[in-house]
Amino acid sequence: MATKSAIRRRLSLQQYEEGIVSGQRTVLGQAITLIESTLHDDRILAEALIEKLLPRTGKSVRVGITGVPGVGKSTFIEAFGEHITSTNKKLAVLAIDPSSKKNKGSILGDKTRMETLSKNPNAFIRPTATGSSLGGVAGNTREAILLCEAAGYDVILVETVGVGQSEVAVRSMVDFFLLLMLAGAGDDLQGIKKGIMEMADGIVITKADGDNFKKASQAKADFQYALHLFQAPESGWKVNVELTSALQNTGIRETWETIESFTAHTQSNGHFVLNRQRQQLEWLHESFDQLLKEELLHSKKINSKLTSLQKKVIANQLSPSKAARELLNEVYKIHDGKS
Amino acid sequence: MATKSAIRRRLSLQQYEEGIVSGQRTVLGQAITLIESTLHDDRILAEALIEKLLPRTGKSVRVGITGVPGVGKSTFIEAFGEHITSTNKKLAVLAIDPSSKKNKGSILGDKTRMETLSKNPNAFIRPTATGSSLGGVAGNTREAILLCEAAGYDVILVETVGVGQSEVAVRSMVDFFLLLMLAGAGDDLQGIKKGIMEMADGIVITKADGDNFKKASQAKADFQYALHLFQAPESGWKVNVELTSALQNTGIRETWETIESFTAHTQSNGHFVLNRQRQQLEWLHESFDQLLKEELLHSKKINSKLTSLQKKVIANQLSPSKAARELLNEVYKIHDGKS
Repeated sequence: MATKSAIRRRLSLQQYEEGIVSGQRTVLGQAITLIESTLHDDRILAEALIEKLLPRTGKSVRVGITGVPGVGKSTFIEAFGEHITSTNKKLAVLAIDPSSKKNKGSILGDKTRMETLSKNPNAFIRPTATGSSLGGVAGNTREAILLCEAAGYDVILVETVGVGQSEVAVRSMVDFFLLLMLAGAGDDLQGIKKGIMEMADGIVITKADGDNFKKASQAKADFQYALHLFQAPESGWKVNVELTSALQNTGIRETWETIESFTAHTQSNGHFVLNRQRQQLEWLHESFDQLLKEELLHSKKINSKLTSLQKKVIANQLSPSKAARELLNEVYKIHDGKS
Repeated sequence: MATKSAIRRRLSLQQYEEGIVSGQRTVLGQAITLIESTLHDDRILAEALIEKLLPRTGKSVRVGITGVPGVGKSTFIEAFGEHITSTNKKLAVLAIDPSSKKNKGSILGDKTRMETLSKNPNAFIRPTATGSSLGGVAGNTREAILLCEAAGYDVILVETVGVGQSEVAVRSMVDFFLLLMLAGAGDDLQGIKKGIMEMADGIVITKADGDNFKKASQAKADFQYALHLFQAPESGWKVNVELTSALQNTGIRETWETIESFTAHTQSNGHFVLNRQRQQLEWLHESFDQLLKEELLHSKKINSKLTSLQKKVIANQLSPSKAARELLNEVYKIHDGKS
């Protein structure tokens, strides 16, 4: 698909809309490719499509999933996804993966990674995100969520690797954030970036089976202790630690029930809607900042001015606040056509 | 001082410069008042002053101190400050206190809070920051640090309350971040905002004396366990938990020695300079964003446009990315004089 030219790939606005609404997976995939495009015309078409579909969005449960490489994320998502679809729900799996352009640590480069789920008629897996900036990827994923919702998916899983800033981005676009953890030897939280545990609405310990079960149970106690040290979340939700085994299919159903309880809890206390509204406003501000930055950094003059100001600031020859004023003056000069 | 008019208070650039360089505390205080002013002419003069003094800055050790109300921050700083000045060093104590405008929870509203230290000829205490936005207060404090350094202060303590976002701001302007903790009953970390413990380069448990000593020792063990769960900091520094008592003057000297060890450690591995350079660049970017926002939000048209876009976004009538584009178009219209 990606090898076809942009012109051949692009459908009309109506074709995209009708294809998505009628649940055609191929069209959904093509539409996600469209929103990922950075071509100006594609962006305009993508924005028009999103506006068209907007009334059909917002009805899914959006779940973020993260965990370090090796935690068994794909295996968990396979089992989890099979369970969700078995309850007569349609499931979409998306990914935020800023590392994919480096062709290293890519989490969704291969559909065969989730072989069973990818053949499931009620599951839609989007194997990879384009490797642009995190801001760009995040914006794309937010729009992809809307497209999947318009296509009738009831549950959207947004997956990311637990090693960077992408968790914060995922957290800002989901209703429930699930952290996958592995029972290790002693340093259980090592490798998990600071603060990620505090963003979790639920924690799952994977591979809690066989010889590993005892270690996993100990890890559960450790995590529960650590959670107790954190401040209570605003949602009023008590974070749960679940022992799971994809192999023995234990804890999978319970994890989904936890998410359903969370949804019921936060919908009744108003947090669910409040959180979504905040996320919408955050998205607006981020989009604005990014548009503005793109416009500014598009200018070679501003770029070279910024570089020279940064050098002076680092060398302590210019104060940062003075440098900021000089940069803004340069922006105005260019906008006024004086430079 | 604050009741005098802006005109009478303002000195010439040369008077400010000479007064500060010769170590006149009154002039230093007046200069900090100048940089806190939001009047345009004051800002221009303040920026010129900072530029003049820039070559004399950067030589101090900058230490951030935070802790929840009741932890005994003033008492600790008094004892700590007396020790530092006894080693023949000049000490300045500044504050970031966004809450002060609410006249509630103000941490430095009263010089008598640190009665002994405020009479110490080698200590300079700046009792309060103006209650503007956190961004504004942070920028002011960064500039106040530079002024104090130009005035020959060897150690700058930047104090804040451990209940909000101001810690992140303080962390971004100091070399060493010290967290004051109280041994509580059980829920030792409650009340400390998420993530603050992970920003600390050192932890001090206060009031570790008398009946409280045993509880404090237990808290030390708990904190050390919790620290062990966090990722190792980039500085390669191992965070230390110190039991202190301002009453019995224990742990005070050791805390200062810890900071000196940290400084030596990070200066030899390059982290000290790297951290400062990053902070300078961060300050540049923050200043630029703030200048830009001030310019934008100064416009009533843009403000009312933003409000109406936000309403539509929350009501799901408009996608955030489309709204961002409409907002940017409004900015251009205004800048082009078309609206």
